[in-house]
Amino acid sequence: MSDAAGRIDALISSFPLFEGQARETLRDLTAIAEIKRFARGQLLFLDGDPGNGFYVLASGRVKIFKLSPDGKEQILHVFGPGEPFGEATAFEGIPFPASAEALQESEAVFFHRDRFVALIRKDPTLALTMLAVLSRRLKKFTVMIEHLSLRDVPGRLAAYLLLLRERQGGANELDLDLRKGLLASLLGTIPETLSRILARMSSHGLIHVDGSRITILDGDRMEALADGTERLG
Amino acid sequence: MSDAAGRIDALISSFPLFEGQARETLRDLTAIAEIKRFARGQLLFLDGDPGNGFYVLASGRVKIFKLSPDGKEQILHVFGPGEPFGEATAFEGIPFPASAEALQESEAVFFHRDRFVALIRKDPTLALTMLAVLSRRLKKFTVMIEHLSLRDVPGRLAAYLLLLRERQGGANELDLDLRKGLLASLLGTIPETLSRILARMSSHGLIHVDGSRITILDGDRMEALADGTERLG
Repeated sequence: MSDAAGRIDALISSFPLFEGQARETLRDLTAIAEIKRFARGQLLFLDGDPGNGFYVLASGRVKIFKLSPDGKEQILHVFGPGEPFGEATAFEGIPFPASAEALQESEAVFFHRDRFVALIRKDPTLALTMLAVLSRRLKKFTVMIEHLSLRDVPGRLAAYLLLLRERQGGANELDLDLRKGLLASLLGTIPETLSRILARMSSHGLIHVDGSRITILDGDRMEALADGTERLG
Repeated sequence: MSDAAGRIDALISSFPLFEGQARETLRDLTAIAEIKRFARGQLLFLDGDPGNGFYVLASGRVKIFKLSPDGKEQILHVFGPGEPFGEATAFEGIPFPASAEALQESEAVFFHRDRFVALIRKDPTLALTMLAVLSRRLKKFTVMIEHLSLRDVPGRLAAYLLLLRERQGGANELDLDLRKGLLASLLGTIPETLSRILARMSSHGLIHVDGSRITILDGDRMEALADGTERLG
């Protein structure tokens, strides 16, 4: 292995995205990877460019941004070392939905989509191991968001349900008028956590849930939850 | 398509795990899927059983648990409709690391590992689309954890760095004595968020970061962050 390949190999082995991959698969990934260097201010790709591959940052920082029609910049994300970007776009083979620019001198490992897909075709365990790693991280993050949300979300949900009761004329039988994903976003959480909080409220006898119909059983305790004088156990 | 297949097809199309899959791929998934029904208290699999497939819950609730050597039960997770479980294990083909039991009458769609791997071999876009969906969710969750953590984590990090200063004899040059992942866990966040908070503290002139060496530049404001009288902008 050349020095350059040895360096790419060491980098790739350290990326969380490729955690748990077999030595041989890491070697295959090294063989298709390219190191790209970017000066401060240099563009990596533009909004609308074909998603012909993805990057994992090795050093530096890269911002992902969109320009509004009047030229205003909206920064969507800033990535640091070890973080992948453009990968969802490249996996789907769609155009990049935003632009990327190096915020400082940066180095990234680039994987060409076609070569990456060919690797998966040859060795499905590459994809299966990546899916396993992403699944585990997602579950860990879900638990963490639930843990972080539990301090506030039940109170906000109670406030929302009470507001809904007012809007729907004061009856305790409510129709959830938002998709669950949208309601979760409104409350600053994710659908999984929202479901669990609804289940918990239900098992505490505060509400009865039947599909998208919710009945408030204990309005006083819902008020207490909403104003923070009580907490959901 | 038979009634049963039509029902499985409708279920599979609604699972977040298979979001964005082409009609044809959904049909292939339906063809390899089995509906399994479980009575309340029934075991789906046991800790140590081969991970020969994974489940997506269609209705009911399933708990994932481990038994300690003295028979005490530790519940790791409770899954509800739409949520997959056992998939990371099945993707890797390792034994289940915990047991699963239905908490109420439940229905799950089961995908046999070998058939699922054969599908990916035939149609890598199945894996690529799943990777794209999981990547996007992970990024969304990362942003959300950062958002939720930002209320408290900088303060706790400041407190930790001040504690470290005391422990290391009062000098402002500190050696981070934990791996970043461990420190992030201790603070209740993830490494990405920790990196961003360190970068933000650095750009505010509170600290200077050089690898794992951190120098406290403004001890007074770090104290203010730690006791909550100041917030990181």
